Amino acid sequence: MEGGGGKTWRFASPNTTLAAAGEMSLLKCLLQLHACLDEHGPRPVIPLSHGDPSSAPSFRTAPEAEEAVVAALRSGEFNGYPSPATNLLARRAVAEYVSRDLPYKLAHDDILLTCGGTQAIETVMSVFGQPDVNILLPRPGYPKHEAHAMFHRMEIRHYDLVPERGWEVDLEAVEALADENTVAIVVTNPNNPCGSVYSYEHLAKIADIASKLGILVIADEVYGHLVYGSTSFVPMGVFGETVPILTLGAISKRWAVPGWRLGWIATCDPKGILRKTKVQDSLRSFVHLVSDPPTFLLGAIPHIMKNTNDEFFSNIVNLLKETAEICYGEIKEIKCITCPHKPEGSFFMMVKLDVSQLSGISDDEDFCSKLAKEESVILLPGKALGMENWIRITFATEPTTLKQGLERVKAFCRRNESQAN
Amino acid sequence: MEGGGGKTWRFASPNTTLAAAGEMSLLKCLLQLHACLDEHGPRPVIPLSHGDPSSAPSFRTAPEAEEAVVAALRSGEFNGYPSPATNLLARRAVAEYVSRDLPYKLAHDDILLTCGGTQAIETVMSVFGQPDVNILLPRPGYPKHEAHAMFHRMEIRHYDLVPERGWEVDLEAVEALADENTVAIVVTNPNNPCGSVYSYEHLAKIADIASKLGILVIADEVYGHLVYGSTSFVPMGVFGETVPILTLGAISKRWAVPGWRLGWIATCDPKGILRKTKVQDSLRSFVHLVSDPPTFLLGAIPHIMKNTNDEFFSNIVNLLKETAEICYGEIKEIKCITCPHKPEGSFFMMVKLDVSQLSGISDDEDFCSKLAKEESVILLPGKALGMENWIRITFATEPTTLKQGLERVKAFCRRNESQAN
Repeated sequence: MEGGGGKTWRFASPNTTLAAAGEMSLLKCLLQLHACLDEHGPRPVIPLSHGDPSSAPSFRTAPEAEEAVVAALRSGEFNGYPSPATNLLARRAVAEYVSRDLPYKLAHDDILLTCGGTQAIETVMSVFGQPDVNILLPRPGYPKHEAHAMFHRMEIRHYDLVPERGWEVDLEAVEALADENTVAIVVTNPNNPCGSVYSYEHLAKIADIASKLGILVIADEVYGHLVYGSTSFVPMGVFGETVPILTLGAISKRWAVPGWRLGWIATCDPKGILRKTKVQDSLRSFVHLVSDPPTFLLGAIPHIMKNTNDEFFSNIVNLLKETAEICYGEIKEIKCITCPHKPEGSFFMMVKLDVSQLSGISDDEDFCSKLAKEESVILLPGKALGMENWIRITFATEPTTLKQGLERVKAFCRRNESQAN
Repeated sequence: MEGGGGKTWRFASPNTTLAAAGEMSLLKCLLQLHACLDEHGPRPVIPLSHGDPSSAPSFRTAPEAEEAVVAALRSGEFNGYPSPATNLLARRAVAEYVSRDLPYKLAHDDILLTCGGTQAIETVMSVFGQPDVNILLPRPGYPKHEAHAMFHRMEIRHYDLVPERGWEVDLEAVEALADENTVAIVVTNPNNPCGSVYSYEHLAKIADIASKLGILVIADEVYGHLVYGSTSFVPMGVFGETVPILTLGAISKRWAVPGWRLGWIATCDPKGILRKTKVQDSLRSFVHLVSDPPTFLLGAIPHIMKNTNDEFFSNIVNLLKETAEICYGEIKEIKCITCPHKPEGSFFMMVKLDVSQLSGISDDEDFCSKLAKEESVILLPGKALGMENWIRITFATEPTTLKQGLERVKAFCRRNESQAN
């Protein structure tokens, strides 16, 4: 390849799969929106675009969690690579945490610790990713699922989440999409971006279909327990007798510390199918290959899981209930935007944009760019999640900030309403 | 695939590339050695096998570094995903740190932050890894280079480090190995496992050859500045005008905190060849795809780099000088082991095992297994690094512990000396 200075350099041409995967990045989309902001605007920017409420004072993490990490750091015992004992205690703590909601008990060997949920996704996609293999992902979905599946050369087949049915999985579509090269279905519950929470019955049906198809369920439950509607959170692992399940979790969301980077993969498979088929060995090989989470977090996690006050969790859930109500109520007052399903879990809702009611706005991306420029509010265009002319709104922030942000969205919509209406 | 219970599961057969890469893991080798230990042995285990002195009180990290992380954690400002400002300040701090030893200045955009040196290796291998591409790696080498290159489907070609020439790179071999599909050469300096430090002149020759071949230099400098012999540490980046260089670094070794997981890739390429050939874009895409380092470490790194006392660094280097001397001296007294080159940098030395002088010991692995069982001392068999009948010894530990460990090695060798000698 020609490199400049007339010299030929032999480095491989840029990895095209990687470039394509990189295009899926939410970060890239958000950076583009941030570039639209008027830097000299009089009002502070209100980001209602990503799943990170940690900077809002009301979402400050539990002091017990913070103290556990500080104590681990100050002890000087966790500066090195994790000892077998540290590793065991950390995995046992997570096994006990995940087991609380299961009809069987996980052992520490059923847990692999990862650098946040991201590395958990990277791990499963690396292990199953081979040419000619395909995977079923939800639409709308989470771009990191797509990007890692793509980077690891899997064919992605999308099944729809149905807004009219509370964003449930289109089960018929799942059956129709799968073939002999399908290895897994990814199910996100509580759902990002839809804010939906699947019932026991719906999850049971997904497990039955996966079992019938002979495929694995990858259950992304990083928003586990963050539910505030009429549907309780049921972990997919409950159906581990029906079908083997890999559950991806993290402390990122429930403890409001996405920057701490501690996640896990739990093998919810009481029949031991993933052990017998050596999938568990492959997962372990990959995790040994890549970076461990910081050792002081491994040292802290038993204390974090044991000592975090229930009040902290219920406060966060109550706050999300309040902000979800605010968001749902305010959106109802905007003509060109509709929310088909009131959120019951996670930090998000998906709303439909009717561009025909607006003048001079072509689609969701155009809407979000102009909103950023004119109102200093950031929303996420649905296109980034596979749904054109939808928008994802995050309500996990201070109620006052959220109200201000939504007021600006309202003003923007009013100003841009087409005269025909 | 048959999974148990008579049912057929469609998950892909275990990823064979991954299994092969997993075999390269040092961890696996060390676990096997630990399994040889006599659990009821009267003496404490002395591990002289891996590059992690952090549990030795004399190698306790700088209090300034620890305080910087505690302060970042306690501030509550770094619990979320890194803000653009946090990211910029962290990358700028690393750019300034790396630039101190270069004849030109790096900008923050020349730095990518990674979860330790491991993720830096993962990143470069992911970006260049394509079928039909080959990469030149040193022998003896570092298993994670091999494992990631292998996992990303590159052909590995080994060039030798020559013990008789102070473990210098066999430059003629490098020229003979490279062809039009070679993309890069990995150079580790200060060297793990050999303890060698390359002179300015030798590095200049490597740069010239890489330039002539049109290949990139990946300079693994995680042991940067940890030198205590007659050769100063010269970063490869000094030759960035000759050939584009990607320097891998981390705070892991110099600050004795391998468990903190903060590393980087520095683009040392003043001619901008990696920018023009889009290699830099690919690196960035990959880093966006995988997990960030913990945000509070990004928040702390400017303080760590600015405030760490020079005395801390010189104490560590003096301690390594002392322990290297002890190790070299003690090994000289053992007949069946020879050290061809006194270590001048890093935590290690490579020694040659003459099994013909021992009875009932077949090779390096057998030696290390029996040593573990009988003496509770762990050394690393050279086979794990590509050199049969060599052994890697780590001397980065408390001098008293090191002496005890080496006494046991001596006793073991004496006991197993063949009668013919």
